[in-house]
Amino acid sequence: MTSNPGVTLSDLNARVLAACADLARLTEVPGTTTRPYLCPSTRDVHAFLFGWAARLGLSVRVDAVGNLRARREGPAPDAPTLYVGSHIDTVPNAGAFDGVLGVLLAFALAEAVQERPLPFALELVAFSEEEGVRYGVPFIGSRALTGTADDLLGLTDAEGQTVADAIMAFGLNPDHLPDARVHGQSLGFLEFHIEQGPVLQAAGAALGVVSAIVGQNRVLLDFTGQASHAGTTPMAHRKDALAAAARFVVAAEELARSTPGLVATVGIMHARPGAINIVPGEVHCTLDLRHPDDAVRLEKLHGLLEGAQHFAAERGVTLTVSPMMGEDATPMDAGLRDLLHRAAGAEGAAHPELVSGAGHDAMILATVMPAAMLFIRSPNALSHHPDEMVNSDDVEAALRVGVRFLDVLAQEVGA
Amino acid sequence: MTSNPGVTLSDLNARVLAACADLARLTEVPGTTTRPYLCPSTRDVHAFLFGWAARLGLSVRVDAVGNLRARREGPAPDAPTLYVGSHIDTVPNAGAFDGVLGVLLAFALAEAVQERPLPFALELVAFSEEEGVRYGVPFIGSRALTGTADDLLGLTDAEGQTVADAIMAFGLNPDHLPDARVHGQSLGFLEFHIEQGPVLQAAGAALGVVSAIVGQNRVLLDFTGQASHAGTTPMAHRKDALAAAARFVVAAEELARSTPGLVATVGIMHARPGAINIVPGEVHCTLDLRHPDDAVRLEKLHGLLEGAQHFAAERGVTLTVSPMMGEDATPMDAGLRDLLHRAAGAEGAAHPELVSGAGHDAMILATVMPAAMLFIRSPNALSHHPDEMVNSDDVEAALRVGVRFLDVLAQEVGA
Repeated sequence: MTSNPGVTLSDLNARVLAACADLARLTEVPGTTTRPYLCPSTRDVHAFLFGWAARLGLSVRVDAVGNLRARREGPAPDAPTLYVGSHIDTVPNAGAFDGVLGVLLAFALAEAVQERPLPFALELVAFSEEEGVRYGVPFIGSRALTGTADDLLGLTDAEGQTVADAIMAFGLNPDHLPDARVHGQSLGFLEFHIEQGPVLQAAGAALGVVSAIVGQNRVLLDFTGQASHAGTTPMAHRKDALAAAARFVVAAEELARSTPGLVATVGIMHARPGAINIVPGEVHCTLDLRHPDDAVRLEKLHGLLEGAQHFAAERGVTLTVSPMMGEDATPMDAGLRDLLHRAAGAEGAAHPELVSGAGHDAMILATVMPAAMLFIRSPNALSHHPDEMVNSDDVEAALRVGVRFLDVLAQEVGA
Repeated sequence: MTSNPGVTLSDLNARVLAACADLARLTEVPGTTTRPYLCPSTRDVHAFLFGWAARLGLSVRVDAVGNLRARREGPAPDAPTLYVGSHIDTVPNAGAFDGVLGVLLAFALAEAVQERPLPFALELVAFSEEEGVRYGVPFIGSRALTGTADDLLGLTDAEGQTVADAIMAFGLNPDHLPDARVHGQSLGFLEFHIEQGPVLQAAGAALGVVSAIVGQNRVLLDFTGQASHAGTTPMAHRKDALAAAARFVVAAEELARSTPGLVATVGIMHARPGAINIVPGEVHCTLDLRHPDDAVRLEKLHGLLEGAQHFAAERGVTLTVSPMMGEDATPMDAGLRDLLHRAAGAEGAAHPELVSGAGHDAMILATVMPAAMLFIRSPNALSHHPDEMVNSDDVEAALRVGVRFLDVLAQEVGA
């Protein structure tokens, strides 16, 4: 296959979807799609992207954390750069679209505008790490572009290998990390990504413009009561850690249901000792709380944890709360959002705004440049699941809006 | 040590407590007290009891399921038999008193009345299996006396060894099971046991007469919703299996608190897939429900399971309920209870009645003869725990009431 000047967006759409299927077979676990950070099959994904970039005449490099970066230079050395991309690592037993679709759309976009002059440079980025699977910390790839990955080099994976070790084992050099940072003037970052949720499906829209990435707190809760005999311990004498934790789960659900935009999840719940006839003495559980408005999120978090203390205390149970993560919401850039709305409007596509409930590389890039995201409908709302899917028409619509976005951006920059 | 005609109840009490401490060191797991059914250390317990029985001139045998049975014959071959005993197996990492104390008190009682004529035979029983640890089914020992153990011979333990295998490996013959059944006229069964709960402690009483052993249901509940992304799935789109299960836990606690005599326990609670940022798609949990009145228990069980179905349905979650056990309450024999009250009254001891929330061998024996239990205060209410304890004075009180019980029973039988 050579680069084809007469290629249509329909052709490119078909090629993107075929590539999603092909790349899903590059995996560490046959029969599944499982590509943790810098795993051997990452090389095969790189090889595919190298090939595509070469056909487009782009310069390509793999930076010090393993991000593949394909660059079309601007009309002048000081022209600003638009970054477009997403990630190529996956969760275990992933679907075929989370991350990879955004990377392939970036390449398709570059091919679609190959013959057009642009007043800016275009850099396609395939981030090596976004999911946080191997080191428990996400966004290693995009953090390298913002100069905030240095502190992560000493993290160790389940085998005791550090990030620096993994980089060297992949044939890269962690000393070159500074070269991974973005240089010069950045026009912004655009990321295409599947929604991973039901909002666009429910709205009957193929695409959505992300208004903000929610802020979130993650908290561990340990309830400690007293294990006792299920038959011989009257209710009034119990210190039932699970009863206290269950009241907390109910309260979290009730609060989130009654607070627009709030989602609250208790994802982990272990009761110990864990026997059918023993009152649980210990419960370990978690809270994941997200909202686009930081003030609302923090107020609700405070209320929920106060409630949890109350539910524990009224049962003679003690509660230890351990904060694990607190991240503020990240609004997407108003200017780039406006361009996405205009581009979608010009293409006749519906373009509702929606909040991203998940973190994305755009959240990291937003700390150093304008960032925007276009979400693509998830028809079955499945995410991190092998049955994750997209509609072909929706992907083609994303491609059309992307090309139009480059047009309107070019007009803005040229003006 | 020889049998000592001048022995006092204080001496016997001291000997019982010392023996509890000694037998707690006979174990499969050094540093703990762990004696599952027919484990090697069972032989050492048997050796100790053989020694005591021999000094009292009792005939001793180990029946086909491993119960040690020491017998003082009655004044005539057709004299009825009073059985006194409890069990010598333990849960893993047990305390020193659950079961064993009742066995040792039976032997101490026999020594205390050794010189007195009795109009009945006395058979001391150390049941080999009550806790249900090794085969998941309790009361193998006492079921052999009631002729209901035959169906259990094919059960397999974690190593795949059947009950019949275990019996043969211990040097016994499962074909002799019929000989383990009680023969002739049974006067009744008396069991001393620690309360394992806080009721007597709260009442300020050393001893209590058991009115009934509660009936109970054990049920498995499997809630199946849909695992989904904690950030991208709005509350209204969730099928959160844990939220449904938590509402059930809260409802069970509320119902039991508002229903006198009812105890409800959710002892097992597993949420899957079990990640901090994934809405749980599956929850496996359990219900243990007990009440002395069968009609009340069954009505409340029905209501709770209906509620669980409702909590599931309103969240798009399905619920599968699997009954594991349903046992009716067992009232203790009114005649023997009356004798225990009279004996305790004659000794100047408080003698409140209380319900047993746990199953006991007396529940099995009650199907073939009058049965009664005397509970001994658990000062810290701990059960199935290495810190399980008793007060020395309480044990001596139990011994005094036991001797007086034999006196009044002898008068009744003789009259």
